[in-house]
Amino acid sequence: MYLTLDLLFLNMAEIPISQLDRLRDLKRSTGGFLNLNPIQRGGILTPEARKAVLDWADGYSICDFCDGVLECIKKPPVDDFVHKTMTCFIGADHVRLTNGAREAMYMVMHAVCKPGDVLLLDANSHYSAHIAAERHNLWVYEIPNNGYPEYKINEELYADKIEEIKRKTKKNPALALITYPDGNYGNLPDARKIAKICSDYDVPLLVNAAYAMGRMPVSLKHLKADFIVGSGHKSMACSGPIGVLGLSESLSDVVLRKSKNYKNKEVEMLGCGPRGLPLITLMASFPKVYERVKHWDDEIKKARYFIDEIEKIEGIKQLGVKPTQHDLNFLETKVFHRISEKHKKGGFFLYRELKKRNIIGVKPGLSKNFKLSTYGFKKDEIKKIIEAFKEIVQIK
Amino acid sequence: MYLTLDLLFLNMAEIPISQLDRLRDLKRSTGGFLNLNPIQRGGILTPEARKAVLDWADGYSICDFCDGVLECIKKPPVDDFVHKTMTCFIGADHVRLTNGAREAMYMVMHAVCKPGDVLLLDANSHYSAHIAAERHNLWVYEIPNNGYPEYKINEELYADKIEEIKRKTKKNPALALITYPDGNYGNLPDARKIAKICSDYDVPLLVNAAYAMGRMPVSLKHLKADFIVGSGHKSMACSGPIGVLGLSESLSDVVLRKSKNYKNKEVEMLGCGPRGLPLITLMASFPKVYERVKHWDDEIKKARYFIDEIEKIEGIKQLGVKPTQHDLNFLETKVFHRISEKHKKGGFFLYRELKKRNIIGVKPGLSKNFKLSTYGFKKDEIKKIIEAFKEIVQIK
Repeated sequence: MYLTLDLLFLNMAEIPISQLDRLRDLKRSTGGFLNLNPIQRGGILTPEARKAVLDWADGYSICDFCDGVLECIKKPPVDDFVHKTMTCFIGADHVRLTNGAREAMYMVMHAVCKPGDVLLLDANSHYSAHIAAERHNLWVYEIPNNGYPEYKINEELYADKIEEIKRKTKKNPALALITYPDGNYGNLPDARKIAKICSDYDVPLLVNAAYAMGRMPVSLKHLKADFIVGSGHKSMACSGPIGVLGLSESLSDVVLRKSKNYKNKEVEMLGCGPRGLPLITLMASFPKVYERVKHWDDEIKKARYFIDEIEKIEGIKQLGVKPTQHDLNFLETKVFHRISEKHKKGGFFLYRELKKRNIIGVKPGLSKNFKLSTYGFKKDEIKKIIEAFKEIVQIK
Repeated sequence: MYLTLDLLFLNMAEIPISQLDRLRDLKRSTGGFLNLNPIQRGGILTPEARKAVLDWADGYSICDFCDGVLECIKKPPVDDFVHKTMTCFIGADHVRLTNGAREAMYMVMHAVCKPGDVLLLDANSHYSAHIAAERHNLWVYEIPNNGYPEYKINEELYADKIEEIKRKTKKNPALALITYPDGNYGNLPDARKIAKICSDYDVPLLVNAAYAMGRMPVSLKHLKADFIVGSGHKSMACSGPIGVLGLSESLSDVVLRKSKNYKNKEVEMLGCGPRGLPLITLMASFPKVYERVKHWDDEIKKARYFIDEIEKIEGIKQLGVKPTQHDLNFLETKVFHRISEKHKKGGFFLYRELKKRNIIGVKPGLSKNFKLSTYGFKKDEIKKIIEAFKEIVQIK
């Protein structure tokens, strides 16, 4: 041997037992609570996925019968799922699985843009779209929203901004992006209208649908955009991390280009996407996810009912476009803020009071405003949350 | 609303029931078999991880108490685990969690190299190192191995090749990489010697330890390299996908640079690493993984016993450096190939005969040569595998 075993062991550091002990018996303490955190609502596993979890939890379980391309595995039926079911579900010509929505956005930016190119995005974009752009050294131009209280994106501004970019840089932005809906206000811009504008200028459009795909109907074909990304752990009842990238034919050859030397491996995928359990949960949950998307109207009704009731409390107001178009909503809660100013726990009072009532998901310390989601709650749970809010405003 | 619900639903495609039915009741069919596939041996969950799985399977479960940086989460103790336990375990100044070893290699290449730069790697590199380089438009120079039957990397060649690159390109390679061990032969080059050479030339070195970290002791401090990557699903008893990146201080500021506008987000991480269950399994398995690494010598003994026994069969020979230094080994099996030439099932006979004996993990169709791993098998299981090989060579 090059290195003797003795030498290897000699250089192994001792880890204090106390550090190891902290890793024993890890329990999630949030079970049984009503969790208002928008990132937690759409990723709750279906019973079907939960049932599959233990069978597939080991490392590369999904790769038992792989011939070299994860997405072409026949057993379990990944090939069929990715190339038929998912393409149909989101109206895409091609689908790829990624490690998340942000990784999918980066893939597209990296493939379609060169460093120094311009990316045009909406002011309501997720921070990870900005970071992906920064990683690839893109210049970011932003479509502003209309500010308080709607924070609405005016679709027409995409034309104005493209014109401005052309004037300033002598060329088109390399890519445009719209967040559909955004993760702060749940505003749903007319992505189809934006796609039409972008298409007229020959600018490819990426739709960040991390809060849409798996919750509400989305169709790349209907939107007539070039790319759409979704998030399994955010909105498709999956264990993280897993994302979905849908592509229309237009630029798919650029994003899905194969390696020069490894003929069955795609470069932007680094050869293979998410290797493991999250994909099994995506597949196992899918029939229920497909079904729940058909009941999106009920989720909207529920969200509107919640907002209507909660706005009856003086000093609570939903920001963003009204009536709400999504389960994710942003509340301005002046009444809680007023209480916090006098309360001995300050802003933390709200977290504590909610928790007392079995409700979590509002970040500890927040009281002035926060976002929440009503997705997947039953009617009586919604009522319980409304009741809790009504009680808490009584606190002196 | 911008888009009416009716219009959304109208554009939702119908998915045939038969496609949905294929996703119901997904079962892994390989349970109970002795699985020789090297990618499957080190990722089998510990009972401790298995116990944690259902509690943490939902989407973003790990992010219940996140303040904006996944790796700084206090509950569960991610912060402590990443910044104290893992750094200690692999002798690194910094550790980051990634979506896999390949994603970690790409991160380093992307941060440290510019497109057009030269990457120097060993001929035994994993394909994903090549694809990562291709994604970032690097020129790849390769250290050859010494060919059949050892396929050994001569460490001294790193100096020769750096000299050659300097002559040809007028500058140093931007990064060097060594695969430790490689995934075909399980050869363990002297990474420390290579690090010394690279350091003398001022070339940063990345150690791909996807088959080492979590199986055998590794220490970045001892190797004196700049980066080391590991794979949770390959070698650390984790659900995929998750990887580990260890960094020495040297170039950590480049790889871990923060976003200009999002002060707590790292650009190469796209803000956050693996958001979900795999990280819980990494933490829950860790005490056992730490313990098993201390018994690496037993794994070597077992692998050598297996090879000794299997080589008693005429027409079976271990390729790669001898005696073997790793649980992953490559067998040349002329005897199976001879059988396949007359067998009505051709090369597939081996897969079928092994499966009859409750053994899987050799790719269907292979008979001339294949790799396997003895990692984690009990002594009687090893004997069963040896017995099976001895029986199968008797087939006419």
